[in-house]
Amino acid sequence: MSSPNQPLDLTLDGGALTAQLVDFPSVSGDEQALADAVEAALRDLPHLTVDRHGNNVVARTNLGRAERVLLAGHLDTVPIADNLPSHVEGDLLYGCGTSDMKSGVAVQLRLAATLPEPNRDLTFVFYDCEEIEASRNGLGHLAAEHPDWLVADFAVLMEPSGAVVEGGCQGTLRVQVRLTGVRAHAARSWLGDNAIHHAAEVLGRLAAYRPRRVDIDGLEYREGLNAVRIDGGVAGNVIPDECVVTVNFRYAPDRDEAAAEAHVREVFAGFDVTVTDSAPAALPGLGQPAAQAFLAATGGTARAKFGWTDVARFSALGVPAVNYGPGDPNLAHKREEHCSLSAIAEVETRLRDWLA
Amino acid sequence: MSSPNQPLDLTLDGGALTAQLVDFPSVSGDEQALADAVEAALRDLPHLTVDRHGNNVVARTNLGRAERVLLAGHLDTVPIADNLPSHVEGDLLYGCGTSDMKSGVAVQLRLAATLPEPNRDLTFVFYDCEEIEASRNGLGHLAAEHPDWLVADFAVLMEPSGAVVEGGCQGTLRVQVRLTGVRAHAARSWLGDNAIHHAAEVLGRLAAYRPRRVDIDGLEYREGLNAVRIDGGVAGNVIPDECVVTVNFRYAPDRDEAAAEAHVREVFAGFDVTVTDSAPAALPGLGQPAAQAFLAATGGTARAKFGWTDVARFSALGVPAVNYGPGDPNLAHKREEHCSLSAIAEVETRLRDWLA
Repeated sequence: MSSPNQPLDLTLDGGALTAQLVDFPSVSGDEQALADAVEAALRDLPHLTVDRHGNNVVARTNLGRAERVLLAGHLDTVPIADNLPSHVEGDLLYGCGTSDMKSGVAVQLRLAATLPEPNRDLTFVFYDCEEIEASRNGLGHLAAEHPDWLVADFAVLMEPSGAVVEGGCQGTLRVQVRLTGVRAHAARSWLGDNAIHHAAEVLGRLAAYRPRRVDIDGLEYREGLNAVRIDGGVAGNVIPDECVVTVNFRYAPDRDEAAAEAHVREVFAGFDVTVTDSAPAALPGLGQPAAQAFLAATGGTARAKFGWTDVARFSALGVPAVNYGPGDPNLAHKREEHCSLSAIAEVETRLRDWLA
Repeated sequence: MSSPNQPLDLTLDGGALTAQLVDFPSVSGDEQALADAVEAALRDLPHLTVDRHGNNVVARTNLGRAERVLLAGHLDTVPIADNLPSHVEGDLLYGCGTSDMKSGVAVQLRLAATLPEPNRDLTFVFYDCEEIEASRNGLGHLAAEHPDWLVADFAVLMEPSGAVVEGGCQGTLRVQVRLTGVRAHAARSWLGDNAIHHAAEVLGRLAAYRPRRVDIDGLEYREGLNAVRIDGGVAGNVIPDECVVTVNFRYAPDRDEAAAEAHVREVFAGFDVTVTDSAPAALPGLGQPAAQAFLAATGGTARAKFGWTDVARFSALGVPAVNYGPGDPNLAHKREEHCSLSAIAEVETRLRDWLA
C-alpha cells in the first residue's frame, strides 16, 4: 500500500489512487491535509483553474464549450472502524471510505488529470463535512458563498450507487402530531380525557394510508408516510394528558416542500400538526440533453434514488443532478466497507467515453 | 405545640393528640420512635393485650364479645415537605401527616384509652411502611407472620375519607400490549412493517371501550380501561419494529384478579399481552351485621372507594373492611396537608357511639 500523506499520484489507475486516498484519513472535520493534497495535485494541471474555500476545492476547465458538466464528491468519511490501512482481496479494495466515497473522488481526479480537452466544460468539486450535520456541509457553504463556482448544466454526484445512475432523490418531511387530554388519577378515569386514546385515529389514518408510486422521467418513485416515534404517558396510575406521534413523509420529486406539507396536513386534518424537519426532493432531470448523452454513455438505464443526498442541493440551485459512483451504497458506513476495483475502472471509462 | 418525642398523652382531645403525633416525625422506614411511644402508651392500659412485630403494634381487648372489630392505621408519612411542626389555623391543623393519617391514628388511640368495656371486642393495629413499596408494608408482614392477630368480623381502616364511609376498593391490573414489525430505512418503508401503525387497532379498542358501572351493596363502582403509556420508535429515519402500550384496568370488586385478567385478554384478543402488575379489589362487605350497625352509627351513607388501599389486604384475609377517617384524601401527600379538627372529633364520637 502507499504511504499516507504523500503527494497524490494522478497517474495511478483508479483503484490504486482510491487506495492512496483511503490511506489518507479524513474523518469529517479533519479534511485539511487531504484538501491540501487535492488542491496541490490539481494546481499541477495547467488546463484547470483552481479555487479554494475552507477545505473545499473547485477546479474548472474554461474552453467555452456549449455545456458545462459538474462532477462532485465529498472528501470526508465516517469515523474509522479499525479498517485502515486499505487492503486488496481479489477484485475488492477494503477500508473506510472505499465505497463512500473515495472511489468516486479517485475517478474525479483521474478525469481531471486525463481530459485536458473534454467535449463539455468540466467543473470538479471536492467538499468537506458531508457525513455530519447539514449546517457544516461544504457544498452548502459553496452554494452560499460562491454560487458562481457551481454553475453547470448538469451535475453528477459520485456517491456510491453501484455503478448505476440513480436519478433525483426523495424529499423528507417530519411532523409531530400532538394529542392533548386532561390528566386524572387512573382510579377515576372518567374525570380525565386520555390523550393516548386520541392517537387511535392518527395511527388509523397512517395504517390505512396508501402511498403513491410516481413515474418521473421513466423512474419509479415510491412514497411513504410513517410514524417513526410515539410517546405518551405520565405514570402508571395517571390518565395521560399528552401524546405525540412523530411522522416522516418521504415523497417523490413532483412535490415541493410546500406541497408535501400541505398533503400531510390534509391527511391529519383536524389534528395539531407541527413541522420539525424538511428537506426538498430533487427531480432526476434526465430530460436534459447532457443527461441523455450521459445516460446513453453509462448503459442507458437509471433507477430512482430513495435516500436524501446532496443532489437535492444542486436541484435547489437549478442544476439537474444524478448520483453515479462505483461504490456500493449498502456497504457505506460499515466496518467491512469495500469497493469493486472493476467498478471503479468501469465508471471512469464510461464517464471518459461521454466526455472525451 | 407539644415537644417532639415526648410520651404520648392519650388524655388530650383528638386534635391535640393528632398534633403531638404529627410533631413526632415518622417518615416511612423511620417509625421506630413513634412505634415505641405508641406501644408504651398502650401498655399503660390494663384492659388491653399488646403485641409487637418490628415496628407494628397490635392491642386487643379480650372480653368474649360476639363480634370483633379491628381499627387499623399506618404510622408512617410521606417525606416532610417543610411542613413541620404542625400549627393550627381556626378549625384546621396543618402539617405532614395531619390528613394521611395521624388524625386517624389519634382517634384509634383515643378509643383504645377511653373504651375499657366496648360492646364488641376491639383490635387496634398500628403499622409501618404503608407509603412505600408493597413488600415493606407492615400490615402485609403481620398478615404473613401473625395472621391470628388480625382475626376480626369487620375492619375499619382509618385512611382519609373525609369522615364518610368508603366501601371496598377497586382492583388494579397493568398489562403491556406489545406490537412487533420489521425495521427498515424510512426512505424504503415498503421493505419494513411499522409496529407503531399496528397499535392503531389497540388504541381503537381502548377508545371504543365502554367501562361498566356496577352496583354492589348499594355502592356504585365505575371501572376504567386506559392506556397509561405508549412507547415506540428507533430513530427519525427508521421504520420501527416495536411498540408497547401499557394499559391499566381499574375494576369493580365483583371481579377477582383472574377474572380481570381474562377480561383484558378478551378485549385485546389477537395481541401479545403480558401482565406486569396486579392487586385485587375488595368487596365493601356492607351486608355484615357489624357493618350495618357501623353504617347507622356513622350517618347511614357510604360511597365506593376508587383508589386501591389496604382494605384489599383485609378482604384477602376474609375480613370485610371499609375506609373511614377524618382526613381529606385530596390533601394527602401535599405540602399544604391539613385536617379539620371538628372532623377528628366527629369521627371519634361516631365510632364511640357505635362501640360503647
